[in-house]
Amino acid sequence: MSYSALEQHFEQLHHLQHLGAICGWDQATMMPAGGNEARAEALGTLAVLCHQQLQDPRLGDWFTAAEHDALNAEQQQSLAEMRRAWRDATLLPADLVRARSLAGSRCEHAWRSLRPANDWAGFLPLFEEVVSLSREAASARADALGLSRYDSLLEQYEPGMRSQTLDGLFGELGGWLPGLIAEVQEKQRFETVLPLQGPFATDKQKALGLEVMGWLGFDFHHGRLDVSAHPFCGGVSEDVRLTTRYDEADVAQALMGIVHETGHARYEQGLPAQWRRLPVGQARSMGVHESQSLFFEMQLGRHPAFLARLAPLLAQHFGEQPAFAADNLARLYTRVKPGFIRVDADEVTYPAHVMLRYDIERDLIEGRLEARDLPERWDQLMQHYLGLSTKGNYTNGCLQDIHWTDGSFGYFPSYTLGAIYAAQLAEAMQQQLGTFERLIGEDLPAVFGWLEQKVWRHASLLSTEALMTQASGQALSAAPFERHLKQRYSG
Amino acid sequence: MSYSALEQHFEQLHHLQHLGAICGWDQATMMPAGGNEARAEALGTLAVLCHQQLQDPRLGDWFTAAEHDALNAEQQQSLAEMRRAWRDATLLPADLVRARSLAGSRCEHAWRSLRPANDWAGFLPLFEEVVSLSREAASARADALGLSRYDSLLEQYEPGMRSQTLDGLFGELGGWLPGLIAEVQEKQRFETVLPLQGPFATDKQKALGLEVMGWLGFDFHHGRLDVSAHPFCGGVSEDVRLTTRYDEADVAQALMGIVHETGHARYEQGLPAQWRRLPVGQARSMGVHESQSLFFEMQLGRHPAFLARLAPLLAQHFGEQPAFAADNLARLYTRVKPGFIRVDADEVTYPAHVMLRYDIERDLIEGRLEARDLPERWDQLMQHYLGLSTKGNYTNGCLQDIHWTDGSFGYFPSYTLGAIYAAQLAEAMQQQLGTFERLIGEDLPAVFGWLEQKVWRHASLLSTEALMTQASGQALSAAPFERHLKQRYSG
Ligand SMILES: [Zn+2]
Ligand SMILES: [Zn+2]
Repeated sequence: MSYSALEQHFEQLHHLQHLGAICGWDQATMMPAGGNEARAEALGTLAVLCHQQLQDPRLGDWFTAAEHDALNAEQQQSLAEMRRAWRDATLLPADLVRARSLAGSRCEHAWRSLRPANDWAGFLPLFEEVVSLSREAASARADALGLSRYDSLLEQYEPGMRSQTLDGLFGELGGWLPGLIAEVQEKQRFETVLPLQGPFATDKQKALGLEVMGWLGFDFHHGRLDVSAHPFCGGVSEDVRLTTRYDEADVAQALMGIVHETGHARYEQGLPAQWRRLPVGQARSMGVHESQSLFFEMQLGRHPAFLARLAPLLAQHFGEQPAFAADNLARLYTRVKPGFIRVDADEVTYPAHVMLRYDIERDLIEGRLEARDLPERWDQLMQHYLGLSTKGNYTNGCLQDIHWTDGSFGYFPSYTLGAIYAAQLAEAMQQQLGTFERLIGEDLPAVFGWLEQKVWRHASLLSTEALMTQASGQALSAAPFERHLKQRYSG
Repeated sequence: MSYSALEQHFEQLHHLQHLGAICGWDQATMMPAGGNEARAEALGTLAVLCHQQLQDPRLGDWFTAAEHDALNAEQQQSLAEMRRAWRDATLLPADLVRARSLAGSRCEHAWRSLRPANDWAGFLPLFEEVVSLSREAASARADALGLSRYDSLLEQYEPGMRSQTLDGLFGELGGWLPGLIAEVQEKQRFETVLPLQGPFATDKQKALGLEVMGWLGFDFHHGRLDVSAHPFCGGVSEDVRLTTRYDEADVAQALMGIVHETGHARYEQGLPAQWRRLPVGQARSMGVHESQSLFFEMQLGRHPAFLARLAPLLAQHFGEQPAFAADNLARLYTRVKPGFIRVDADEVTYPAHVMLRYDIERDLIEGRLEARDLPERWDQLMQHYLGLSTKGNYTNGCLQDIHWTDGSFGYFPSYTLGAIYAAQLAEAMQQQLGTFERLIGEDLPAVFGWLEQKVWRHASLLSTEALMTQASGQALSAAPFERHLKQRYSG
């Protein structure tokens, strides 16, 4: 049976990816600096091997023959996901893949010094090369998939999502967001927020983090918590490696970072055991992944009921202080302040940073915007959404993100799609199970049980659209996100 | 140039082995228990892949063509080592490899419960299957290599070593060892040794261990120290992962374990950077590897001058106690007591455990001893060397080691060859640089510099015989080991 041959082949690929995930985690958390060069080489060889595995010439025949295999519905979806992975790996001519990878490395490498130097002029020619090759790749993908150029890139991160849908969702969001931002700022202008008084010893932060992960149902039999410069959730679903970074001056950020990553981790740990070694058993999309972390961080973590449970824990680990009062924590964790930097943004202004990037990258790829005109468009949109000028400020303007330097166009929307999905799931869950006030106070396991049933166990067995519909009974919509933000920030 | 193609091919293999080494280390030190099944599968796939890499059908042609390449002497040795790795991987028919691996897994798995149950009768049929398939493999290797059956297995761990040489070395050793053991026991009978008084907190043991590793020149930029159930030295030479196990009741053993593993680690860290990715850049043999760990543990670590430096460190980390006196430490660390268990044996009785196993495994493989007669021979030899009877005691007799259960015949001699090499190196070094009294007290870096020049940098560029000769100016001999033991224990 050809389907069996395909399963075996993709399981082997999964095993290689497992080794890469663990060695990548080790590189970020455990490896002494002197091991880096050898590790990079070893991981490079593995990447080539994984690519070869997806380009095995037998695959084409197996896929054709598998169409005649008697498969149940899940196996058919499994076959479709294998085919998608194969298609993505074989669609572009090898020359173009190589050229794009080279231009991307060159641009990203230069960016590391050009960004701090605020050197747009030095960056532009390298970036133009990346844009040009990304357009070429997008064209090739577009032709093969029957999509627009930008949609063909979006498809890599958020299968099934189209810019037409995004234009609708973001258009709606963009309609009310600037007004909400202004309103909240006005409302918070005279609010008193006590800052948390440090220092907060690393080992105590870790103990607190582990306790909160325990609350949130993280399975320590299948995962662990460590430290890395850039927090992430890695490893494999049987062994999830979550990382954080401690700042002894600030416990608030590391703690909420752990809550966020625990959302990613529980999704991974909750993927169906039966399908874990195959593409269909992986997380549905970047946006759905982010919906789980934002569900944990924003819907649960910044909810007053959650912060009311957190308050005594903080006091227990670090001693009493007035700033640990539950209502102060709630004000602290819902503070809104327009700023230049996306990764530092709060829940309300974050979508503005994303919509701005979406607008630019879509037009760049579709050929409606040129790389040289990027700073001007950036400035316009920052003015429009957040009332900030980035004229001449490239460091904290259009040079702030790594994503575009290596040509990862199409990824940014995932962040705000995640927030939109999370709000829709949270609304549906509360309609079915009762309010977060009650659930967080009395029955967190019911929250996780619901997510497991509605999201985690489905892995990639459903499309995102079907996933959202069966979970919420509604088509995808930004309305729950609007209700959530308005209720929390201007209610 | 075919040699270049071979280099590239073997470098790729090395990268895969790198990933396996790190993931294997992770499995022993970091991995949560629930990750084990997936990890075992992933490492299994990697093993198959490494094997396939060595069975690539292009290799034969490349090796033939490379004979016409213009190669310098080092490249020629590199070629020879690649050819050796290839030969070892392709020599046996695939059916036999599979059957042996299966029988080995089955026997090893059963042994884990049969040993504690003292169940020789249950073990025997499984072990007979392993012996029979190992003989078959040995015959195939023997035919191809023009060696005796046992020598063809020995060749895997100790290239160039022959049972004829071993018979000579061990015959000599066996002549004076029983007498020495008796003499030392008599001498130590009325000696007072104060036991070290615990508990010794794990974090303090670790701090002390790190300090001692620092003394011994371990490069923390290219390695680290962690904890595992069974201490080992893993990772890759650019990133050596050393492990230990702490017992709060006993600091002496963990500490000397760290010294031992640091010897292995420095050999790895000292391998020549230029050759690290190729077979010729790997450690020469199991025996040479063990010679470095035993040089550190036995020649240096149990030397009175070393223990005199250790004494104040112990007091500093754990507080003063009479047992920390340098002369008490020296008595403690040179205590000789015949016992049943090889891994618990002291420096003097250890070779007896090895010679006994050598005698048995050689005859088993050559067909001069049958598996069913093993307990009787074991008992005879234990009586002869150590005056202990193991009649009916399989648990602490012939069932104590894991090595034979999966058919690793030919490995045991490495332990005592390591001790013999170490003594010969130590004698030569002291002739050239001065006594250990002075070197340990004033100039440890000279010791390591000498080892780096004479052993580490040569990797597998020289045969063991050439390595020993250029280092010591003498052919391989057990005489320095005899002088060392007699001087330390009956001097
Ligand atoms: Zn995230
Ligand atoms: Zn050793």
